[in-house]
Amino acid sequence: MKFKTITWAKGEIILIDQTKLPGGLVYVHCSTVKQLWQAIHDLKVRGAPAIGVAAALGMVLGLSKKKEKSYLELKKNIDRLFNYIASSRPTAVNLVWALRRMRDTAVINSGKPLTTIKKLMLKEAQEIIQEDKASCLSMADNAQVLIRKNDRIMTYCNAGMLATVGCGTALGVIYRANELGKEVKVYSCETRPLLQGARLTCWELAQQKVDVTLICDNMAGYLMHQKKIDKVFVGADRIAANGDAANKIGSYSLAVLAAFHKIPFYVVAPYSTFDLSLSSGSKIPIEERSAHEIRTGWDKRPIVDRRVKIYNPAFDVIPSDLISAIVADTCLVKLPYIQNIKKLKKMNSI
Amino acid sequence: MKFKTITWAKGEIILIDQTKLPGGLVYVHCSTVKQLWQAIHDLKVRGAPAIGVAAALGMVLGLSKKKEKSYLELKKNIDRLFNYIASSRPTAVNLVWALRRMRDTAVINSGKPLTTIKKLMLKEAQEIIQEDKASCLSMADNAQVLIRKNDRIMTYCNAGMLATVGCGTALGVIYRANELGKEVKVYSCETRPLLQGARLTCWELAQQKVDVTLICDNMAGYLMHQKKIDKVFVGADRIAANGDAANKIGSYSLAVLAAFHKIPFYVVAPYSTFDLSLSSGSKIPIEERSAHEIRTGWDKRPIVDRRVKIYNPAFDVIPSDLISAIVADTCLVKLPYIQNIKKLKKMNSI
Repeated sequence: MKFKTITWAKGEIILIDQTKLPGGLVYVHCSTVKQLWQAIHDLKVRGAPAIGVAAALGMVLGLSKKKEKSYLELKKNIDRLFNYIASSRPTAVNLVWALRRMRDTAVINSGKPLTTIKKLMLKEAQEIIQEDKASCLSMADNAQVLIRKNDRIMTYCNAGMLATVGCGTALGVIYRANELGKEVKVYSCETRPLLQGARLTCWELAQQKVDVTLICDNMAGYLMHQKKIDKVFVGADRIAANGDAANKIGSYSLAVLAAFHKIPFYVVAPYSTFDLSLSSGSKIPIEERSAHEIRTGWDKRPIVDRRVKIYNPAFDVIPSDLISAIVADTCLVKLPYIQNIKKLKKMNSI
Repeated sequence: MKFKTITWAKGEIILIDQTKLPGGLVYVHCSTVKQLWQAIHDLKVRGAPAIGVAAALGMVLGLSKKKEKSYLELKKNIDRLFNYIASSRPTAVNLVWALRRMRDTAVINSGKPLTTIKKLMLKEAQEIIQEDKASCLSMADNAQVLIRKNDRIMTYCNAGMLATVGCGTALGVIYRANELGKEVKVYSCETRPLLQGARLTCWELAQQKVDVTLICDNMAGYLMHQKKIDKVFVGADRIAANGDAANKIGSYSLAVLAAFHKIPFYVVAPYSTFDLSLSSGSKIPIEERSAHEIRTGWDKRPIVDRRVKIYNPAFDVIPSDLISAIVADTCLVKLPYIQNIKKLKKMNSI
């Protein structure tokens, strides 16, 4: 691995500005929480597990600037930071999950000196980082029973090293398969409007010397029809208690196409992506983003007449009946999802 | 109508450079067949019926430069022009259909003076233009039994005034519906890689004051799932004897998604788009275009690492069992397609 998606050093959060890829590998230094909020909002850092880590470090960063005099004051600042950072993006649950862990650490240790609480919170953030790395490796291993030699795998958006601080979710599975000599080939959908598939997935797969072919999103069905695809692997931003999974817009179409062609469709996601408070995917909040992303996208030249309306949902929900299995970090989750998701437990960090 | 897709004036073929839309309405004057070939190849003029007209006029243009001394010499030039113009794009059959009509006109009149033959060929080209206009109006009328007030119609690529010399195929249906007070709304898929939906369809619908919303191709399934789409109407580039229809890449995925959501999927195409010499869609040649179109597209900035392979088929084939009906110019074609397509006849021009 030649790059680090997010790190914490000298009181700053350092992250790759993913909007600049593949043109250049540029790191952004966030020394204020506002900068971090903007980085998450503008997708400089993205991917459900990665923004969980970013949020946890954001909490540390915010508190490092404060000199509270009482636990009550500290708690107020924590709550304020919680709400502020949580507002940066609504769909991925990992963000709120990480913030909750940070807040709980303070609450559990409320009797201790304030400097100790803050040290424990930094330790918690570092634990989240270690857990994410371990969790990626574990998902990669758990998925191997699903992958055969020379499989041709379709993936969507970016669920790789750039979306985590480890080897990735869906792409981690591919890296591991190739380490084991399975020589899988990847078809990456470009993922309009922001082209995370073309810009990020293709870049990191090429870096790791994986055989990758880029297609436009609208070509996926035709490739399946031509029998060029054996399996689909994607990540997720939030999974409800019944197994419905929110992921980048277009994932739903891909799951329908896979089902139509009888191609297995797998979702790869760590424990932090499961939201058992929601009974089904219809309750997951779907972020709608600026029309500007489609109107001009990565180009400066408008591609559409200015009188035209634009609809730009950033996510959709894959109903669990279109998902062949969910690859979690502790185990492979299969039907019946409701019962099996209930049994999931947080992985012990290594 | 405030623009003319293709016209013949003063020995030149004048056409809108559709690669410049929606930025500007720029006309290109082709005074040589080579320029016309390039214009078709580079998609300055595109859309199956429109390139049929362009090809017919191309034959007139090519012959206008020659001073043959015998019918044999003329026939040689005609055959040379036929092969050359036909090589500009392989999938849409209207191109070859129009060239064949032009050649047949010469063959039938081979006994007449050469200047008379050329005059008759110009007349034939003008007839193709008139027929295309009449045919668009007729398809628009034939489709009205399928459209209800306030229907929300999804369309793909551009099958409008820019794809014909009339009011369009799939979009002609929408214009006619709104003339009849049906107030239909349109969702236009942007159609990667060359964005004909975003650039062309949205532009011409906005010009005609149709309520249009642009989405990325990968959002189509999610919209259908949300019950925002009542019907899908698309054009076609070639329809085989069994009803399989080649159309812009992505049409196949859209047809599968429509079938999954039980949404009617209609293909609108004139007689010239039917190719009864092919028993099924698997025999239709699929044009593969330059990787450059995806690698950089309409932007100058590369969106993908240069080490990555790219697959860029320009069309795919919709199997007839996913098509609810084909709206032709003489009638509505329904199941069984093989029998009903056999009965189709060329429309009489008005």
